[in-house]
Amino acid sequence: MVSPAPIVTASVYICLLHYPVVNRRGQLISSAVTNLDIHDIARSARTYGVNTYFIVTPIEEQHRIVRRILGHWETGESQAYHPDRVEALGVVKLLHRFEEVVEQIRQETGERPEVVLPDARLMDGQVSYAQYRSELWREGRSRPALIVFGTAWGVAPEFLDQVDLRLEPIVGPQGLSGYRHLSVRAAAGIILDRLLSGFVSGSA
Amino acid sequence: MVSPAPIVTASVYICLLHYPVVNRRGQLISSAVTNLDIHDIARSARTYGVNTYFIVTPIEEQHRIVRRILGHWETGESQAYHPDRVEALGVVKLLHRFEEVVEQIRQETGERPEVVLPDARLMDGQVSYAQYRSELWREGRSRPALIVFGTAWGVAPEFLDQVDLRLEPIVGPQGLSGYRHLSVRAAAGIILDRLLSGFVSGSA
Repeated sequence: MVSPAPIVTASVYICLLHYPVVNRRGQLISSAVTNLDIHDIARSARTYGVNTYFIVTPIEEQHRIVRRILGHWETGESQAYHPDRVEALGVVKLLHRFEEVVEQIRQETGERPEVVLPDARLMDGQVSYAQYRSELWREGRSRPALIVFGTAWGVAPEFLDQVDLRLEPIVGPQGLSGYRHLSVRAAAGIILDRLLSGFVSGSA
Repeated sequence: MVSPAPIVTASVYICLLHYPVVNRRGQLISSAVTNLDIHDIARSARTYGVNTYFIVTPIEEQHRIVRRILGHWETGESQAYHPDRVEALGVVKLLHRFEEVVEQIRQETGERPEVVLPDARLMDGQVSYAQYRSELWREGRSRPALIVFGTAWGVAPEFLDQVDLRLEPIVGPQGLSGYRHLSVRAAAGIILDRLLSGFVSGSA
């Protein structure tokens, strides 16, 4: 690709979903928020220009834990020693339900976001990352995109009604036959990089 | 790209370096190993077909901690409930010094590895990910590659004598002017994806 680099015109949002997800037996659960899911994914979100990183859990005790973590980083000491961490956490917003995320984006942008689910299994109708990257970078695209990362053993079947578009599995050099168990922290970074990485001084 | 997909013929190794690295003031330190650096990067390493994930620290107490973590996952219970985690950790090898990593790869492959350092700053002579990916996937390449991830505030200046090749900074849609503070867990996943990602059913 040549400079000047194109720009992403549509807003991109991400969401880490702790409910509704399933456990290893396929049962509906609400998973626990973890400290590094907040930090690592916030840092990736800021790096790739994500508008807001929504963390969704209906559990009030989990909200208290997340607020305590975010509060810890609001001190002057954090600002002095880890300004990059503090800056990253500014992108985080905590909500109770996925519907609130959609509604908030609708209010901010005037449009219902396109809800995008990265998939671990190969299925009909999935879109490749190259295809969806072109769509996000298309001049004049205005519809916001909301990329949803499931936790635990993935989003529950009943969530799929909310999904507009599914992305192909991420595979290594062995393709679909290889080991495929990335952490959500690594997967979120990889997915944002595939869709939103930019250009260093005009080089491809 | 079209099918049949090409294959990576050279062996790729990675190394998470805890010494020699620098702190925020640029002083030489040995950083602490963290539980999720082990797990997340091991899962990414297995996904992308990395031969061995070396963890390097000279501190004996840190070796005890890593061995305890690895030992925890050798139980039958872990094997029953988290076989994918156990499988990922099989790729991990703990050593005291970087020179031991180079020597071990030389013994395994008969060649000194090409030591590759992903860089956070733009510098002369860096290679783009696209260029180095082509090199790794080049038919007939035999020299093993060793990709080094620094911890803390990055590898110490004296380590640079060991480096054969430096990779361009990873940037988001805003390029070099944007926020650039990925976690090492996300960065390792992104770097392996850029260099070693494969193909789903022949699509690009």
